[in-house]
Amino acid sequence: MREGKATKPTMSKSYSVAVAGATGAVGVEMIKMLEQRNFPLQSLKLLASSRSTGKKMTFRGEELTVEEMTEASFKGVDIALFSAGASISRQFRQAVTDAGCVMIDNSSAFRMEDDVPLVVPEVNPEDVKWHKGVIANPNCSTIIMLVPVAPLHRAFGLKRLVASTYQAASGAGAKGMDELLRQTRDVLDGKPAEPHAFVDPIAFNVFPHIDVFQPNGYTKEEMKMVNETRKMLHTDAIRVSCTCVRVPVQRAHSEALNLEFEKPVTPEQAREVLAAAPGVIVVDDPANNRYPMPIDASGHGEVLVGRIRQDISQPGQTGLDMFVAGDQLLKGAAYNAVQIAELL
Amino acid sequence: MREGKATKPTMSKSYSVAVAGATGAVGVEMIKMLEQRNFPLQSLKLLASSRSTGKKMTFRGEELTVEEMTEASFKGVDIALFSAGASISRQFRQAVTDAGCVMIDNSSAFRMEDDVPLVVPEVNPEDVKWHKGVIANPNCSTIIMLVPVAPLHRAFGLKRLVASTYQAASGAGAKGMDELLRQTRDVLDGKPAEPHAFVDPIAFNVFPHIDVFQPNGYTKEEMKMVNETRKMLHTDAIRVSCTCVRVPVQRAHSEALNLEFEKPVTPEQAREVLAAAPGVIVVDDPANNRYPMPIDASGHGEVLVGRIRQDISQPGQTGLDMFVAGDQLLKGAAYNAVQIAELL
Repeated sequence: MREGKATKPTMSKSYSVAVAGATGAVGVEMIKMLEQRNFPLQSLKLLASSRSTGKKMTFRGEELTVEEMTEASFKGVDIALFSAGASISRQFRQAVTDAGCVMIDNSSAFRMEDDVPLVVPEVNPEDVKWHKGVIANPNCSTIIMLVPVAPLHRAFGLKRLVASTYQAASGAGAKGMDELLRQTRDVLDGKPAEPHAFVDPIAFNVFPHIDVFQPNGYTKEEMKMVNETRKMLHTDAIRVSCTCVRVPVQRAHSEALNLEFEKPVTPEQAREVLAAAPGVIVVDDPANNRYPMPIDASGHGEVLVGRIRQDISQPGQTGLDMFVAGDQLLKGAAYNAVQIAELL
Repeated sequence: MREGKATKPTMSKSYSVAVAGATGAVGVEMIKMLEQRNFPLQSLKLLASSRSTGKKMTFRGEELTVEEMTEASFKGVDIALFSAGASISRQFRQAVTDAGCVMIDNSSAFRMEDDVPLVVPEVNPEDVKWHKGVIANPNCSTIIMLVPVAPLHRAFGLKRLVASTYQAASGAGAKGMDELLRQTRDVLDGKPAEPHAFVDPIAFNVFPHIDVFQPNGYTKEEMKMVNETRKMLHTDAIRVSCTCVRVPVQRAHSEALNLEFEKPVTPEQAREVLAAAPGVIVVDDPANNRYPMPIDASGHGEVLVGRIRQDISQPGQTGLDMFVAGDQLLKGAAYNAVQIAELL
């Protein structure tokens, strides 16, 4: 077996896949997902920057060696899962599509481009069909929000959404998760919290600053939730506002959602719709202290939904409040990307 | 000097004060506040349960001994600051008022009673006047929300408010703060997170459960924010919904607020009103990474307000989004109680 490739007995149809950014927090989860979901692989190529070249990683019990990503890397590759940052995605787009390879990109580079579908398989699988070589994975907080919100929108017509997020350190990758642990240890030892991966201290703190500020006062992360929601639900009529906040949690994002619908909807009706929705687990039994929490969502591909209640600030049962939690690295990134590959 | 009392040269007018629950997280801060604000004291009595009797505490450089609280404790006392839980407040109310002493109560015991004013000095100082022996300190998250929201309401007419909170461990007192530190150490050491003060793990986690669940699906904490807001702003027309969430932060609460007004209001107008409002510090310079954070609010009596922006989900400049942070033990409890005592 060649370095950097794992082969598998050919199934009815199997694919050559490359993971670009294989050693990053999301890349590692992408590889795990391909393994766990028994993705029909003809070969697997692990690509990263020269810094990580030669690193060994295990896949289906075999040791694979990470190769340096170059424009030549994509020859003979069917699907490339990219999670190496927006600039790397931009740099390699042409080489990937020229090689006849489909790029499934986890970065924000192409998400809002008209000829790039933005896909959550539970929300808009049909959009995969019109891709022209690139399919974008939405922003993690948008994915985690839309998996439960899309089925409610289809049933009751979403008019307006106010979201407040509780986002994990993993949103800044492995360095964010490492920083949370290191800084927390330092603070417990009486040392100052030194921020590197984040602008502000993350240990025992929260801050309303994820991605860069826009002229309208929202952050880019907040505007992603607005714009990506509209693109995936195929309507500009849905009004969205949100506040994105980083919290000292390792790898699952939570969100408090306030929803306003065209049609009346009771919490019972919402629970019924959500219980039948793909990718959603209803965890909503407050009497027994059961509601979504990031520690319970971690390691799972599904989004947990609970605290579903009639919004008492809205007339006529048109409003709902709820709380959701989902694994940022899995459903928010790696799992969604592999699901898109499966759709192909 | 007698045990448990500190005397001071008589000023124009001075008061005998008792702190009930002196050894609790809020009680300790109440004593610090009386010291820092040079409250005109004739004497200070530190009261607690028999468990803490005999404990020594320092006030203005003198050592005071904690006394066991009995019905006889309030004879000759002018003002009793209570922070020993709702059941203790209920138990001693009669004894306190029979002694001609005014009870300023930090618990939720009497807040919604018609003949008990609920007061934030920056919001509704005039309500102190009609007290009948008891004045209630509002819930911490309500105080931190209303200090900035009340002046905006007066200027632009608040119609609806959606709040999502990021509440610190101190909301469960010293035992909550201790639990956060202990549990965080345990998790970092690879041990399981054992919850005692909270139902759920607080280390590296968040949970949407503060106080008990109500039949409408909201928690009691969330309904306090709804009902106390209406009582203090003297109107039932303001519609409020909120989701209260505990986060692994030591002692300052943060809140993401989405506000809808009768009159149009720009972020600039809101900043002007807030800059002139008592008890508020506008921290709103995203270009230089300046916004409210709990670590910056800790130890301060003022509420920090920032991320002020026009809500893009509302038409015609009638909506604002903002983020606030305030010290739960100070403005959320001890400082507000001492401010009420000063009003008297």
